[in-house]
Amino acid sequence: MIMQTPNAFDTPAALRQKIRGGRHTGTTAGCCPGFVQANLVILPIEHALEFMTFCIRNPKPCPLLDITDPGSPHPPTWLANDGADVRTDLPMYRVWQNGKLLKEADDVTDYWRDDFVVFFLGCSFSFEEALVKANLSVRHLEEGKNVPMYKTNIPCRPAGPFQGNMVVSMRPYRPEQLGRVSEVTSRMKAVHGGPIHTGDPAAIGIIDLGQPDYGDAVSIASDEVPVFFACGVTPQNVILDCRLPGIAITHAPGAMFVTDVLNDFLTQN
Amino acid sequence: MIMQTPNAFDTPAALRQKIRGGRHTGTTAGCCPGFVQANLVILPIEHALEFMTFCIRNPKPCPLLDITDPGSPHPPTWLANDGADVRTDLPMYRVWQNGKLLKEADDVTDYWRDDFVVFFLGCSFSFEEALVKANLSVRHLEEGKNVPMYKTNIPCRPAGPFQGNMVVSMRPYRPEQLGRVSEVTSRMKAVHGGPIHTGDPAAIGIIDLGQPDYGDAVSIASDEVPVFFACGVTPQNVILDCRLPGIAITHAPGAMFVTDVLNDFLTQN
Repeated sequence: MIMQTPNAFDTPAALRQKIRGGRHTGTTAGCCPGFVQANLVILPIEHALEFMTFCIRNPKPCPLLDITDPGSPHPPTWLANDGADVRTDLPMYRVWQNGKLLKEADDVTDYWRDDFVVFFLGCSFSFEEALVKANLSVRHLEEGKNVPMYKTNIPCRPAGPFQGNMVVSMRPYRPEQLGRVSEVTSRMKAVHGGPIHTGDPAAIGIIDLGQPDYGDAVSIASDEVPVFFACGVTPQNVILDCRLPGIAITHAPGAMFVTDVLNDFLTQN
Repeated sequence: MIMQTPNAFDTPAALRQKIRGGRHTGTTAGCCPGFVQANLVILPIEHALEFMTFCIRNPKPCPLLDITDPGSPHPPTWLANDGADVRTDLPMYRVWQNGKLLKEADDVTDYWRDDFVVFFLGCSFSFEEALVKANLSVRHLEEGKNVPMYKTNIPCRPAGPFQGNMVVSMRPYRPEQLGRVSEVTSRMKAVHGGPIHTGDPAAIGIIDLGQPDYGDAVSIASDEVPVFFACGVTPQNVILDCRLPGIAITHAPGAMFVTDVLNDFLTQN
């Protein structure tokens, strides 16, 4: 059974307005089914070319959808065309200073700079819809939780200062479901694509599935195996791992930017 | 029947050495079967972020494989690890000044600047191998020619100064082959992916298939239809259309950078 979140029937524009007004907080998991949600990374332009290169070199964790014009807080119109504002339209942000978490905030207007560039990266929430449609139910949605995310020992390919390990999300499935899971998700390369690992968590450096680094732990039945997907929280881990000089802003894990783009668009293009 | 070119059995490193020494000239079509060939765009760093954004927004004509560190003429080692040099290792270049063709040259060492960034884009030569393996023979290879390429009226999505129309390559097939052509090429998104148009050339602004804007005309049988694919010559047309200020260097159409990467790698990743 899939639990409906309170905002399952909002349009993306209506949800963004709620978030902007403080009337929706926490995760966007399950919100606006059918629409692409995006991971957010905001950096000064001095780091923009190197981060974009990092995305090209690591397309599974960092599937880059688009970027803003330098200094503009407004997404490209194909992502949201109602004057959406990345400084206010996510439920929760993380502000980073010299690679350390400075604070979490529900509005980053006060931190905004004219030399900021905003990166929108695809999010696995998009392929969850495809999984559910294929009768492959998604545990954290069933349990009304945020997806569990873990740091791994899998190194990303570096670019400039950006280097560090991949973060993965996890969804448990029974062995006979694994073929279909791979088939459904592999088609969606703009949103992390197929699994990067299946089975033994220790093989990719995860000690305890009950203690995710981000998000919530979910139950795993005795006949299920964990399936791991590249995760858009990876840039946050990289900012931390490489102690990125200066300021950076990201979404808080699970608190995404909800776009006007249909998930179907990403499968076709 | 597929004609073997004189360099069909060279390794990419051996071919690059021949090119560097002036012992292979002209097109690289048919050279080093099985290996990825790349379109090349060289720009001053001031345009790099905007051109990279252009690639992200136009992934079919501009499937970005990787870029160099600013100022380095050496490709990332996964593309070529023998100290390859982009200033000498292509058979022919085009040098552009303020959006006009300044000259063609077989060596651009004299034009090199320390602020240049080199962009490597996927090339349809990669999916030709897949087509041939699927018994869908490729006309210009059969006829020992360069692929025919045409300017279209299809606008690219702009980024900064980069705006203009798409260039396409064309291969003729019989109607009953079209499904398989689409199936084989759609899998290879890192090298332009599936057809962008099939049939009537006028619908995309092409007046005469016998007069390609780049490359060579090929014969089309009366029971065949033209199939058009996004082409990596598009950036050259865009540099022209937008009269890009300053200098830019590209490969000459059909004279590609031959990498050490197997085509199979692009299908899988």
